[in-house]
Amino acid sequence: MEHPLFLHHQVLLQESAAACDSRGYYSVFPESASPRIYGEQAAELGKAAFEAHRGQEFELDLPGRQGSVGGEVSPYGFALDIRYPKVELDPLLAAMRTAQGGWIEAGPNAWAGVCVEILQRLNRHSFEIAHAVMHTTGQAFMMAFQAAGPHAQDRGLEAVAYAWRETSRIPRTALWEKPQSKGEPLRLEKHYRVVPRGVALVIGCCTFPTWNGYPGIFASLATGNAVLVKPHPGAILPLAITVRVAREVLREAGFDPNLVTLYAHDAADAAPQELAQRPEVKIIDFTGSAANGNWLETHARQALVFTEKAGVNQIVIDSTDDFSGLVKNVAFSLALYSGQMCTAPQNLYLPRSGIDTDRGHMSFEEAAAALGQGLGKLLGDPARAVEILGAIQNEHIVSRLDMARSLGNLVCDSQVLRHPQYPDARIRTPLLLKLDADQPDLYQREWFGPIAFLIATEGTAHSLELAEKTVAQHGALTFSIYTTSEEVRARAIAVAETTGVSLSVNLTEGVFVNQSAAFSDYHGTGMNAAANASLTDSAYVANRFRVVQWRQHSSA
Amino acid sequence: MEHPLFLHHQVLLQESAAACDSRGYYSVFPESASPRIYGEQAAELGKAAFEAHRGQEFELDLPGRQGSVGGEVSPYGFALDIRYPKVELDPLLAAMRTAQGGWIEAGPNAWAGVCVEILQRLNRHSFEIAHAVMHTTGQAFMMAFQAAGPHAQDRGLEAVAYAWRETSRIPRTALWEKPQSKGEPLRLEKHYRVVPRGVALVIGCCTFPTWNGYPGIFASLATGNAVLVKPHPGAILPLAITVRVAREVLREAGFDPNLVTLYAHDAADAAPQELAQRPEVKIIDFTGSAANGNWLETHARQALVFTEKAGVNQIVIDSTDDFSGLVKNVAFSLALYSGQMCTAPQNLYLPRSGIDTDRGHMSFEEAAAALGQGLGKLLGDPARAVEILGAIQNEHIVSRLDMARSLGNLVCDSQVLRHPQYPDARIRTPLLLKLDADQPDLYQREWFGPIAFLIATEGTAHSLELAEKTVAQHGALTFSIYTTSEEVRARAIAVAETTGVSLSVNLTEGVFVNQSAAFSDYHGTGMNAAANASLTDSAYVANRFRVVQWRQHSSA
Repeated sequence: MEHPLFLHHQVLLQESAAACDSRGYYSVFPESASPRIYGEQAAELGKAAFEAHRGQEFELDLPGRQGSVGGEVSPYGFALDIRYPKVELDPLLAAMRTAQGGWIEAGPNAWAGVCVEILQRLNRHSFEIAHAVMHTTGQAFMMAFQAAGPHAQDRGLEAVAYAWRETSRIPRTALWEKPQSKGEPLRLEKHYRVVPRGVALVIGCCTFPTWNGYPGIFASLATGNAVLVKPHPGAILPLAITVRVAREVLREAGFDPNLVTLYAHDAADAAPQELAQRPEVKIIDFTGSAANGNWLETHARQALVFTEKAGVNQIVIDSTDDFSGLVKNVAFSLALYSGQMCTAPQNLYLPRSGIDTDRGHMSFEEAAAALGQGLGKLLGDPARAVEILGAIQNEHIVSRLDMARSLGNLVCDSQVLRHPQYPDARIRTPLLLKLDADQPDLYQREWFGPIAFLIATEGTAHSLELAEKTVAQHGALTFSIYTTSEEVRARAIAVAETTGVSLSVNLTEGVFVNQSAAFSDYHGTGMNAAANASLTDSAYVANRFRVVQWRQHSSA
Repeated sequence: MEHPLFLHHQVLLQESAAACDSRGYYSVFPESASPRIYGEQAAELGKAAFEAHRGQEFELDLPGRQGSVGGEVSPYGFALDIRYPKVELDPLLAAMRTAQGGWIEAGPNAWAGVCVEILQRLNRHSFEIAHAVMHTTGQAFMMAFQAAGPHAQDRGLEAVAYAWRETSRIPRTALWEKPQSKGEPLRLEKHYRVVPRGVALVIGCCTFPTWNGYPGIFASLATGNAVLVKPHPGAILPLAITVRVAREVLREAGFDPNLVTLYAHDAADAAPQELAQRPEVKIIDFTGSAANGNWLETHARQALVFTEKAGVNQIVIDSTDDFSGLVKNVAFSLALYSGQMCTAPQNLYLPRSGIDTDRGHMSFEEAAAALGQGLGKLLGDPARAVEILGAIQNEHIVSRLDMARSLGNLVCDSQVLRHPQYPDARIRTPLLLKLDADQPDLYQREWFGPIAFLIATEGTAHSLELAEKTVAQHGALTFSIYTTSEEVRARAIAVAETTGVSLSVNLTEGVFVNQSAAFSDYHGTGMNAAANASLTDSAYVANRFRVVQWRQHSSA
């Protein structure tokens, strides 16, 4: 007897699994916030739901509750004043272990069906989550809606599809019939059970709590594990809503809600390190700093550890037949969410001697000036600019930005903008500095935030060499090249394949290097320091479960 | 243009990949040593080929050669006097890196096709390898033929099939076409490249150098990596022959033979630790002691590490309706290759109050005596016994056996047997001792070799509890139960699923708990201390390669 939620979502699962193999465009959750899609009142109700959380206790019936925590402040300039349950680890983990019994018994199809149902339910909370993400991460509203809502849900579904694709390949039984030279064959019946590893810990970040969190949450849940979500203290609400929705669906589907729990904590609390090393924790998905990610890889030895860490993303500009498109595209990539994306470019390499373009040869200075003007034009109207920039998530980024301003010659200075609705919002335009290739100490490190460098090189061969070296040493999630030369493109592809970084070639239209589409773009390769895994491939899911078999003689 | 070896082996690859999904009986390489299959002269030629190695330099044109090493001694009582090239790591690894260029370019289908060709070529060396394995590991000839020849080749093919199944799911290109609310869709063409991790190190053991070595060798080679084989100093020849054959096939297929190399070393040499931590080494497959495996997992942090280590395999005897079959089956499992299999049982739990059988109730003492008699009967004729027992691989095992004899009451003492052909062979029959459940310090550890314990428990519930605790603490690859009760069987299955160990139920006929069949039995689960991976599943292959993409606007 299959679980009703599997039967209900089976066709969608089959389509999604097929999309993993074709990797063309595939999206289940509409990115348009149109009332025609989400309902006439959806926007208003979502905002009201967010406002209703403010100043309140966030109710979650978690085991082991002892008080409450929480101190999120919106980057748009006000405290959320939401308190979340604070839980003790021992009773929490004991309850999660108990919860696993019925879940393991239900098997892979039920896991997948319930996960899809959770994602569909989350989709209905997209507006509420958008506001929650906006006022924790600083993303502008529309980006928060798309990236934290439907795009994150699609990434979650992709993880479910990969998980189900792997688990559903394991036969439940097999008849093993070995011919003998004389007489009857040897016959064994074999029974295979997909068994999860245990408790999976998902450690959220403060910039993309759902987009980066959902793949781990759903990959682990869809392979039978119980999931403990530990949000960043600065961005608890989006994952708290997620956990609440997951628990609702689990309960309605006849399972123990303690399969998905929340561990909220204060920034000063050292308990997360203890948590990551608990023997019950068998899987960890982490997004955050290189220091914390490396610590987990080194110390959480009892767990499979999937990390996405820091990196230095780069653009090599060799030549173009659409300089105007290049400028618009690069400027938008630098400005989007104030460069606070793990995929945002930081280093732009240009030959000191300039580049050939559809406007003729341009000197380095001319090209630099045009890029600066492009940023100025994109962000010239503050009301429009804030919808691209969003707000700066925290003060550390502002400090870094201030520190960076003195490092090189300004191409484009960072400006403080005033948000028309939120006067105290922390808004900055990108800083673009000129550096020389012989200043690697400055640009061969991550400057997270709206900070980018235009680096003068000996020529494109030198640019590619620097780009290769930087990825090899510091990691990167994205790499971009502009060139009209087939040969240069081939060399850029070779650099990408050697260092394991996704390459975008000549993006001049409505797609940006920062963007990574579920079911089509692999986000991270697992081949360099920026991430030890990829969203999403078989390797991301196949080791989250194991197979245990039993066999006996068969009279069949 | 596909590589000719892919075209030649494509159908076999498709069949093998399908067998991974059905997990019924599937074997490509015949286990019968019959001249009708392998040719009239195969046995003789294979023996001659082995004899021709003795006392000679084993020629392999490896880069970085500096002298020679080797000091293998047959457990059948004579030195092999074979010298192997000793190589310097720097030039060896540099040459392997160079070799990778054309290999990576060739892509997944070529990798798989060449791997199948190597396996088919190895199959033609089965008799030579059988003698090489016999006179390094101590396996009896027919076991050496089957396990080190066709069964190892099938395990290798299984790894190739899994690898190819994964790599061939990655599309080479995709058209990503995203509808826009107005106007033309956004169109990107995307290109995906399967990229190997780098150099894969395979660390061989001295008991099953090919059966345990081939999965790692072929999983890594079939995912585009270069493979450096480091045999155990006591069992170099089987892997040296393997490497030579692989290099021949690679060269004939138009590739650089340095894609597969050998690092032979003396037992006292500490270089293997240095080797395992070299930055070029990105994957390690290891079979051997818990100490060495744990060292690798802790220290070779630059690599993905797959380990098969020690464990304590167990049999719970509750009841049976075929006591005679039970005795025969268990005796054979204890005797086969003198218990020197990673799958051989060590602890047999029986209720102190005895068991119900088809002969009526039998007391613990009666059952113990019957098991001792079963061993005596099986091994009563020395000429036949040596063909089951083989020889003891090394003196440490004999010392351990001597130490064990004083630990408990004898059910069956270990005997020294004289081999009719090899008077100096190191041959011992199994030792079976009675212990009490309250002596966990004695039985809750691995006693590798022909050493087994019959442990008196409070009853089957207690037996299962001890078995569960032992697997949880020390790991196990196999677990076996004899019971006529559905309920007890269900409890045993629950123990197996909780601790991650393969269970065999009521084996009384021609299948033994020690045996694990390619394409059907998962060898190891990766869930307990005995192994961190399984032979073979998706997780064993999917992370040996990565995918790197590039994308650009498409006018298509």
